[in-house]
Amino acid sequence: MRQATRKLRIERMAALTDGLVAIIITIMVLDLPLPKAPTLAGLAPLAPVFAAYVLSYVNVGLFWNNHHHMLALAEQVNGRVLWANLALLFFLSLLPFVIKWIGFSGLAPLPVAAYGAVLLAAALCYRVLQFELIGCNGGRSGALARAVGRDAKGALSLVFYGVGFVLAFVQPVVAVAIYVAIAGWWLVPDRRIERAA
Amino acid sequence: MRQATRKLRIERMAALTDGLVAIIITIMVLDLPLPKAPTLAGLAPLAPVFAAYVLSYVNVGLFWNNHHHMLALAEQVNGRVLWANLALLFFLSLLPFVIKWIGFSGLAPLPVAAYGAVLLAAALCYRVLQFELIGCNGGRSGALARAVGRDAKGALSLVFYGVGFVLAFVQPVVAVAIYVAIAGWWLVPDRRIERAA
Amino acid sequence: MRQATRKLRIERMAALTDGLVAIIITIMVLDLPLPKAPTLAGLAPLAPVFAAYVLSYVNVGLFWNNHHHMLALAEQVNGRVLWANLALLFFLSLLPFVIKWIGFSGLAPLPVAAYGAVLLAAALCYRVLQFELIGCNGGRSGALARAVGRDAKGALSLVFYGVGFVLAFVQPVVAVAIYVAIAGWWLVPDRRIERAA
Amino acid sequence: MRQATRKLRIERMAALTDGLVAIIITIMVLDLPLPKAPTLAGLAPLAPVFAAYVLSYVNVGLFWNNHHHMLALAEQVNGRVLWANLALLFFLSLLPFVIKWIGFSGLAPLPVAAYGAVLLAAALCYRVLQFELIGCNGGRSGALARAVGRDAKGALSLVFYGVGFVLAFVQPVVAVAIYVAIAGWWLVPDRRIERAA
Repeated sequence: MRQATRKLRIERMAALTDGLVAIIITIMVLDLPLPKAPTLAGLAPLAPVFAAYVLSYVNVGLFWNNHHHMLALAEQVNGRVLWANLALLFFLSLLPFVIKWIGFSGLAPLPVAAYGAVLLAAALCYRVLQFELIGCNGGRSGALARAVGRDAKGALSLVFYGVGFVLAFVQPVVAVAIYVAIAGWWLVPDRRIERAA
Repeated sequence: MRQATRKLRIERMAALTDGLVAIIITIMVLDLPLPKAPTLAGLAPLAPVFAAYVLSYVNVGLFWNNHHHMLALAEQVNGRVLWANLALLFFLSLLPFVIKWIGFSGLAPLPVAAYGAVLLAAALCYRVLQFELIGCNGGRSGALARAVGRDAKGALSLVFYGVGFVLAFVQPVVAVAIYVAIAGWWLVPDRRIERAA
Repeated sequence: MRQATRKLRIERMAALTDGLVAIIITIMVLDLPLPKAPTLAGLAPLAPVFAAYVLSYVNVGLFWNNHHHMLALAEQVNGRVLWANLALLFFLSLLPFVIKWIGFSGLAPLPVAAYGAVLLAAALCYRVLQFELIGCNGGRSGALARAVGRDAKGALSLVFYGVGFVLAFVQPVVAVAIYVAIAGWWLVPDRRIERAA
Repeated sequence: MRQATRKLRIERMAALTDGLVAIIITIMVLDLPLPKAPTLAGLAPLAPVFAAYVLSYVNVGLFWNNHHHMLALAEQVNGRVLWANLALLFFLSLLPFVIKWIGFSGLAPLPVAAYGAVLLAAALCYRVLQFELIGCNGGRSGALARAVGRDAKGALSLVFYGVGFVLAFVQPVVAVAIYVAIAGWWLVPDRRIERAA
């Protein structure tokens, strides 16, 4: 395949992802309710919804940032990569819905569990995407595979999201604390890939 | 025409398409109604709307995926190609409206027929786009024409969408089953073009 | 300036434009009201709003298409070009608002005049953008200037939009007919530039 | 790192920014309320909200324009640059919310102060982004650092936004005047960078 064509293909996958991420972020702002009165007292009830917005912005930003680093080491995409990416975007697109639900019903077990389920599913898709991208970019000896390594951090996150999901049915607040902790952990940028790049 | 200019032109058509696809997908989520209660019983009535969302996400993803593969084999665009693409995007942009309608009125004959009509019109535009792209990229002997071949699958889909549209007036559920079947059929990626690429 | 940097600059202006056009189109669909009943009788009252949507989709598509052809002949942008483009996008961004207004109040004089005013202002900005782009891409002897020529079509359109705007206060229906006629006239692609390209 | 990969990375940061800016602008239009009657008298009450929309469009346009000039002189991005950019986009994404709040509660102290706080925070992030970009693009002797110079204009703007924020609690109208003045001051394009380019 020609070099130019190959670049167009990977760029379009990046463009669709960037577009969707930009829209998901902005739509979450649309869902923020207006304060009832223009006073600090009127603003106070918004604090939990606003915190949920910040947490989700950070989570979407994390996915985008790691996606960005990962694609910088890829040269090829195929049909399976495109569908893994579409599946990842599908679950990210559910985030605004889940946040709106939490904003509407408070920290009830089911919505908080749904938030964890969406993040878990997105993280799973991300791993499949990573696996498929490695497969068509030099395999185990390619630059991407070497940069990613065993990705214990990614695997552990899956476990933690699962724990958060289960705990949400018992103690939703603890589940939220786990989601916050995972996001904080990932906020340290993925130095492995950056170093390799 | 210069190489760089030619690339900018095809990239902008891709960019507009990617942007619109990203927005269409996200807007469909905006239309998902919130559960009345944060319980499984409250979530149950959402199942059909959610299924409609998943089906439409898959359909939009299919169009985008095949569009992506097709453009990877094109080097040129002209005014007719741009308008065929805009017409395709027009019908895809109606999908969120039709889904919202189904979500509002249930599986009534007219909305289900409208869903089929929109998919049929989009598929027709896709074929016109394919035809025009082949026309300005080497014609019948070009790489795109050879990859596409007779495209019996595309032609048959048009027939099936038409059948679904007609059946919607008699048995909406059967029409929906046909839409699902066509999407499932296409989920197998278009190996012809991928092989050629 | 380096070649790569120059390309990035023009590509970002194109990207912002493509993004905004994609969103404007989709937001217009969001404003389409749902039929009251899932029957042809319930669908009928939507005809005017739907026609307004189609007309606006065509108008936005026309601006995008001509923009696309124009940029394909440009190599440079400067601050004035970026602001002319932002002004064009500003007026295009008002289209969904004006259409929603027409959909809400019917073909009343003021909303129909506002529709014409928005199109007139967008067309004026387009001409300024064209003028500035020519100025920093070889001036009168550049490829873009030769392709555009005297642009009598563009100048006449301004006059017609102005006529439509004034007539809207007397006979809104006639003004709408003028808007439709201008769009139909422009649907013939701009062969001057395409030939040059 | 390969040239092509480096370009893809900076282009994706630009693409995410362009997408978000396009959506923020358009979402602000969504929040414009419809006139109660299709008459000039019905249109008059919209003047303040419309003015707020124009001011915010100009502010977002200014950030985008300067961002565009700045990136045209950069060749590299790293994790810190990406997060500084995401933080800038976070605060810009709050603009539609703050404008809707002002439109809802009028020029009350708290919403006007919030508008200033959002602009101040965005301007701070912009400076951090500039600092980080300089850091990974040649440092103090790089082309970007030389073009930016001491950036007294940027530093002064921070002070003025801070003054506006504080004054909003006493005299909201004066704070708005200050916001308008800063925007007007920046509307003169950043000739330093353009000259360097």
